[in-house]
Amino acid sequence: MAGTQEIKIADNAPEAVSGVPTEGSAAAEQGPSKNELKKRAKDAEKAKKAAEKAAKQKELEAQKAAADEDYAVASYGKESLNQSQSRPRRQRVQICSLNPSMDGETVLLRARVQTSRAQGNKMVFLNLRQRTDSVQALLIVTPEKVSKQMVKWAASLQDESIVLVEGAVKKSPEVIKSASVGDVELHLSKIYLISGLDGRLPFTVEDANRPEAEIAANEDVQYKRVLLDTRLDNRIIDLRTQTNQAVFKLQHVIGHLFRDFLESKGFIEIHSPKLQGAATESGASVFKVNYFKGSAFLAQSPQLAKQMAIAADFERVYEIGPVFRAENSNTHRHMTEFVGLDLEMAIEEHYHEVMELLDDLFKHMFRSLRDRYKNEIEVVREAFPADEFKWREGSEGTLKLTFKEAVDFLVEDGVPKETLDDIDTENEKRLGRIVKAKYDTDYFIIDKFPMALRPFYTMPDPEDPTLSNSYDFFMRGEEILSGAQRIHDPALLTEKMKEKGIDPASMASYVDAFRMGCPPHGGGGIGLERVLMLFLKLNNIRRASLFPRDPKRLEP
Amino acid sequence: MAGTQEIKIADNAPEAVSGVPTEGSAAAEQGPSKNELKKRAKDAEKAKKAAEKAAKQKELEAQKAAADEDYAVASYGKESLNQSQSRPRRQRVQICSLNPSMDGETVLLRARVQTSRAQGNKMVFLNLRQRTDSVQALLIVTPEKVSKQMVKWAASLQDESIVLVEGAVKKSPEVIKSASVGDVELHLSKIYLISGLDGRLPFTVEDANRPEAEIAANEDVQYKRVLLDTRLDNRIIDLRTQTNQAVFKLQHVIGHLFRDFLESKGFIEIHSPKLQGAATESGASVFKVNYFKGSAFLAQSPQLAKQMAIAADFERVYEIGPVFRAENSNTHRHMTEFVGLDLEMAIEEHYHEVMELLDDLFKHMFRSLRDRYKNEIEVVREAFPADEFKWREGSEGTLKLTFKEAVDFLVEDGVPKETLDDIDTENEKRLGRIVKAKYDTDYFIIDKFPMALRPFYTMPDPEDPTLSNSYDFFMRGEEILSGAQRIHDPALLTEKMKEKGIDPASMASYVDAFRMGCPPHGGGGIGLERVLMLFLKLNNIRRASLFPRDPKRLEP
Repeated sequence: MAGTQEIKIADNAPEAVSGVPTEGSAAAEQGPSKNELKKRAKDAEKAKKAAEKAAKQKELEAQKAAADEDYAVASYGKESLNQSQSRPRRQRVQICSLNPSMDGETVLLRARVQTSRAQGNKMVFLNLRQRTDSVQALLIVTPEKVSKQMVKWAASLQDESIVLVEGAVKKSPEVIKSASVGDVELHLSKIYLISGLDGRLPFTVEDANRPEAEIAANEDVQYKRVLLDTRLDNRIIDLRTQTNQAVFKLQHVIGHLFRDFLESKGFIEIHSPKLQGAATESGASVFKVNYFKGSAFLAQSPQLAKQMAIAADFERVYEIGPVFRAENSNTHRHMTEFVGLDLEMAIEEHYHEVMELLDDLFKHMFRSLRDRYKNEIEVVREAFPADEFKWREGSEGTLKLTFKEAVDFLVEDGVPKETLDDIDTENEKRLGRIVKAKYDTDYFIIDKFPMALRPFYTMPDPEDPTLSNSYDFFMRGEEILSGAQRIHDPALLTEKMKEKGIDPASMASYVDAFRMGCPPHGGGGIGLERVLMLFLKLNNIRRASLFPRDPKRLEP
Repeated sequence: MAGTQEIKIADNAPEAVSGVPTEGSAAAEQGPSKNELKKRAKDAEKAKKAAEKAAKQKELEAQKAAADEDYAVASYGKESLNQSQSRPRRQRVQICSLNPSMDGETVLLRARVQTSRAQGNKMVFLNLRQRTDSVQALLIVTPEKVSKQMVKWAASLQDESIVLVEGAVKKSPEVIKSASVGDVELHLSKIYLISGLDGRLPFTVEDANRPEAEIAANEDVQYKRVLLDTRLDNRIIDLRTQTNQAVFKLQHVIGHLFRDFLESKGFIEIHSPKLQGAATESGASVFKVNYFKGSAFLAQSPQLAKQMAIAADFERVYEIGPVFRAENSNTHRHMTEFVGLDLEMAIEEHYHEVMELLDDLFKHMFRSLRDRYKNEIEVVREAFPADEFKWREGSEGTLKLTFKEAVDFLVEDGVPKETLDDIDTENEKRLGRIVKAKYDTDYFIIDKFPMALRPFYTMPDPEDPTLSNSYDFFMRGEEILSGAQRIHDPALLTEKMKEKGIDPASMASYVDAFRMGCPPHGGGGIGLERVLMLFLKLNNIRRASLFPRDPKRLEP
């Protein structure tokens, strides 16, 4: 089309020189010589040609100017900073809502430019992304609508720019594999930059989203590998990957399921203070805070507060909140701050009431995740391959081992018994593998831990005082919950504090809470990020935390 | 009945002495003198009487022993410490489920002894409480079932002891006003102490629950007034009042409504770290933490993190979590730690999209509270009298004033204009009264605050750079939400930081978050305890916090 236009301009050119006066006609009246006439004719011819040439040149310049004139200036460009100047209330659509039945409809949407690819100077392909959804968009030079300048500008947009586009939905002739919405494409008529980039991307979202398996399978391609520390240093970009959008959707879902289940069982949510007057549980791993002219300490868990809520007749409480641990542990599963899903409830007869409720809670979470969030789980699995998470249902029920049985399994497997006063991380994993092989489950419970391994507030076993009414829950061979029946008797509590070297006076308000009558109770604390990491097999807890904190990381 | 028994014992006594041998009959064979006979007869009579007396005495002692024998020993007493010794799986009921249709049924339940009142030594009345529910129970001496000793023991139980009782439900002849379940009473057959008291109650729950109005209305009665500081020092007891059980049920409900509404609008929950590498927002009011060999700071809000989540394409996020303010403010509405209900969302056209969503959120909360939690609100109102909370519905909508209009109202009302660069707490309350009188609403919005009054990240108004795209929400004349459109452009953000005296380098990871493209966005932060305090008119924010923290209080 542009070609036709140019030819038309060339055709018109001769017409443009007609009617230009020459000196020749006036001179003829004087009857000049043949030579003179020849010379004049020659000169006239020359002048004519020169004039023609000049005119043509002038015309060409005008043509060129006309061709360069940007008839699309209003249809593209950088928007002025949105300071809420106006509110036209034009509906904007979501990419995920686009479908072939909308063929021909004009839509408006805001999206990121994931990638762009110019084809000559007449066309550009844009991959537009909204969170986990993407669609292909085309911008093609079109008379009076889309100018070359507009295409050039659009092609120059940096990846990750945020644009507002208007375009027609077109059914795509074949499925576009590079987009999550592959059965339509957008033919753009307008494109504005809402927010550009100030600097270069540390890595592209495509690079960040590429599974390790794909990199390994294509050894000849020089893919950019984005390592975890680089990701965390540039977490804002890293979080934009499909994988991370799914991971944090699932984090949200786990919290939601936790609440929903507990509320259906009569629990209410509490909010306990993180600032404590005394170092709780153990002084060694607590953060100290400058508190006006004195000091405070960050709660290592809502343990004390939730027990006090039970003493205050709340009966069944839960809390979702930050938990602080000043442990200098630089492992794949420790952070200095994580999210605790905590609960505590009065016991009627036996602490297994609590253990069973927690077991029901986990099975509810596992079932809902599997049944209702298949897509998100699959998205994550592309980046982090994992066997489907398995647990036991029905009359068979969750596998429950005593600590002694767990130790026996390990001894049978060749671990020296004398090393098994406690089950360390390595042996936990080993036990996970033994259990998986024997029972085909990724989820099990260990009950009846030795008293020596548990905090002072743990209720001893009624028959064997070296054991306790306490349990840990495991996923894929790692602990995700620790819980127990608690001591609700102030005399026994004081005795146990002393045994563990804690001065009861240093926690007076906690001990006093049990002096005015407290029902028997128990509970547990779940690490949200651990559940998320282990269910999805993310292999590092930092991947399950929005902005992780460890001894070496306080930013971003 | 007990009287009849005693008489029966007296009747039996003479029978018990029959058949006792005497010395008289053997001596008669030797033919003694008359005198001798007389003497003997006299002696015999004496001996007989003595023997009779001794026998009677012995018998009486046996009688007494029989009467004292406690045939009810198995039906009462202190239970051994519940260490989960057994699990009979006997169903226990809730007081709130008791009703006259259960007349004659035997039930088992755990409750606190709110009060007890002995009537003679044969009967004791117990008021049994579970959270906000109570029922009257009677224990009456009954042969072979309830002994005097049992009644005496039950009457000696301290208030607030936790007991396990078994008894028959009886339709009560007339409604028992002192109990929340007044149409039945429990005739106890068993009562065991699960958890007693170690010391004296600092105040009774009855005293703590008594409305100020009742105390004022009964000047002649010497009621014990429980002051706020005493309550907070003994928060475990204070929280057991009906009022507080309702207050914290409603706190739970507000959080639940906040989440539910936002999730229906496509928000997801995030958890951002409270440990920050740099002092955020303003250095003055931030708590410093010893972090291994360096320092960290406690987040004054999730402001920065939630904005960064928007830059990371989360689009709509909320967070419920602790917020820390190192302000030495000792007022009725400041705490050093409170619960922030925070949200942030991308803006399409105008920041009023955010303001309107927040407005819809509040109206949803108010409506649900009014319609679904009438009982809890009424319980609180008994202790804290308040006019019903009013807001505007329908086409009229929420009252929205600009800051300038608000100032004009105050000036009209007599406040000197020159004092109104800002609206202080006192003038806020005054404005609340003006608005209430003019518009009959306890809830309104002020929009368009001067830029000078807002944090550096606030987006300036597009026309008047001295104003900003920011708003506060008010309940009963006190601010409960502060929000705004934020600056999403790193250049403008840096400029505004410098204007407010903040070194952009000190918050590099925050500023950098906007360099890789960020949509226009806005949000707000709500103080959970303030909403609760103002909706219920609790008059002091500490009453709306489970374990409040202020510059002078870190316990319990």
